[in-house]
Amino acid sequence: MTQSKEHGSYVSGGGDYERKTRYIPTRITKDGGDGYAVEPGRYRLAVSRACPWAHRTILTRKLLGLEDVLSMAVAGPVHDADSWTFDLDPGGVDPVLGIPRLKDAYDKRPDGYPESGITVPAVVDTATGMVVTNDFEQIVKDMVTQWTEFQREDAPDLWPTELRDEIEEVSHRNYTEVNNGVYRCGFAGSQEAYDAAYDRLFARLDWLEEHLSTRRYLVGERLTLADVRLWPTLVRFDAAYHGHFKCNRSKLTEMPVLWAYARDLWQTWDFGSTVNFEHIKAHYYATHLDINPTGIVPKGPETSGWEVPAGREALS
Amino acid sequence: MTQSKEHGSYVSGGGDYERKTRYIPTRITKDGGDGYAVEPGRYRLAVSRACPWAHRTILTRKLLGLEDVLSMAVAGPVHDADSWTFDLDPGGVDPVLGIPRLKDAYDKRPDGYPESGITVPAVVDTATGMVVTNDFEQIVKDMVTQWTEFQREDAPDLWPTELRDEIEEVSHRNYTEVNNGVYRCGFAGSQEAYDAAYDRLFARLDWLEEHLSTRRYLVGERLTLADVRLWPTLVRFDAAYHGHFKCNRSKLTEMPVLWAYARDLWQTWDFGSTVNFEHIKAHYYATHLDINPTGIVPKGPETSGWEVPAGREALS
Repeated sequence: MTQSKEHGSYVSGGGDYERKTRYIPTRITKDGGDGYAVEPGRYRLAVSRACPWAHRTILTRKLLGLEDVLSMAVAGPVHDADSWTFDLDPGGVDPVLGIPRLKDAYDKRPDGYPESGITVPAVVDTATGMVVTNDFEQIVKDMVTQWTEFQREDAPDLWPTELRDEIEEVSHRNYTEVNNGVYRCGFAGSQEAYDAAYDRLFARLDWLEEHLSTRRYLVGERLTLADVRLWPTLVRFDAAYHGHFKCNRSKLTEMPVLWAYARDLWQTWDFGSTVNFEHIKAHYYATHLDINPTGIVPKGPETSGWEVPAGREALS
Repeated sequence: MTQSKEHGSYVSGGGDYERKTRYIPTRITKDGGDGYAVEPGRYRLAVSRACPWAHRTILTRKLLGLEDVLSMAVAGPVHDADSWTFDLDPGGVDPVLGIPRLKDAYDKRPDGYPESGITVPAVVDTATGMVVTNDFEQIVKDMVTQWTEFQREDAPDLWPTELRDEIEEVSHRNYTEVNNGVYRCGFAGSQEAYDAAYDRLFARLDWLEEHLSTRRYLVGERLTLADVRLWPTLVRFDAAYHGHFKCNRSKLTEMPVLWAYARDLWQTWDFGSTVNFEHIKAHYYATHLDINPTGIVPKGPETSGWEVPAGREALS
């Protein structure tokens, strides 16, 4: 749900950072109850490889083998004042949607922009060129529960009925303390707000370090949405949050259990193939000019450590 | 030589960062040739515990046991637009010099400010209240060679005649690539200037990592000014340069030889007692508002690792 902002203003004047969380509630379902039925080839998932919220949809689409039925539009890492742009594509235009800016697909909506603004991920109906939904939580759940007919045969069940309560509970705390917690550190408008956000973030990371020391995955004995939701924040931690957002008690590489857990998913489930560190760094450092006015993008960190075997097989 | 700047502008527009290096050349010597003879109790060394250049003089004064003959005025970490201030002292006034700002001691000079500006370290003549010199290189050399009569009996010879050429050669490269190299990264005015500075910095750190893998100290088999000059940059690396200056290929804690070398000096020579991480972080993050506009100071990094035994005795 990484948002573009007018005037490049991200820091919250004088206090806590609060994310605008009202998204377009329309769903794409088996029965098409909201007017949008699951249909191979009809929708296009607009993402940026920089954005952690979009990353969840990229991972889920890949794990479920939906690549051939749900195509993907990849925006460049650095959006302009009010929109993600398709500047990576030839001519700067998405080859399927035929638009240069994601805003053009939002503009087609009769009800105006959602409160959340122009965000990725967004699902666009290729028939009309209009954004159907940008609700990153619901998009992922519906990939799991509504697109079943088109998932690959051996696709993992990422949201098993019997584990849903626990998955949602763990994910909710991870969201408030970690996924959104790093932003609360980075966009804090006062020293007090930052200090409090930092303490909450590392308290939860300590809890996760302990929790994952005796089990391979967050919930149950299997990969679930809880892991898919946490991981995009972990993979960005040293490249962006540690320095840019001042989440610097330690690097991910200095939290041995979380570091091995993150490498395990990179390696075992091929999460690594979805990562573009250059996009991640360019996005954070060149977009948030109110916390990095020079727009200079760091060359570090060294990332070869992601290939070091995680050695967590024995835990499962 | 950390400088105060008007309008808080540190970044070099469009290019390489260049440090103003013309200091007051007056020396304090045995023969008083420049009008200032070595004399117990006459001079006051003005420092900030944040500044790496001042840190060299603090370390040298301590190693040589000059505390009782050369007193110290400690400025607060965050200076105002044009001066370091004695805001740590009761009433905000240095108890010996009787001034609230270091600028007042520079103002007494008949020839105006040096090109370097209002910098620490500076040596002030308490008789006149005037800054005698701010040449951080010469101050340290003269502590070693001119204050011999007042050094403690078992003081190490930090600048042995037979090693001087090598000490100066190693120190010069460390200065251009590391001591000043981190500033070149942090204040770069373009991506190209930053990228080049980063490569030079880590090339030299790699050289040092190799060099120190087979010897305990930089030059010879003993502690010398080469170590005293490098160390203040190493101790600030993770707390300031890694994040604030984007020197983030790795932390010092991730360069095993340099990290053990730095801990060895902290522990064996009690360098640790001269360090104030809160002053260091407050200075860099709250002063350079053109690269950290919020002025928020990070809570990290965790620094307890400095007490982990270095285990380098076998190398000497």
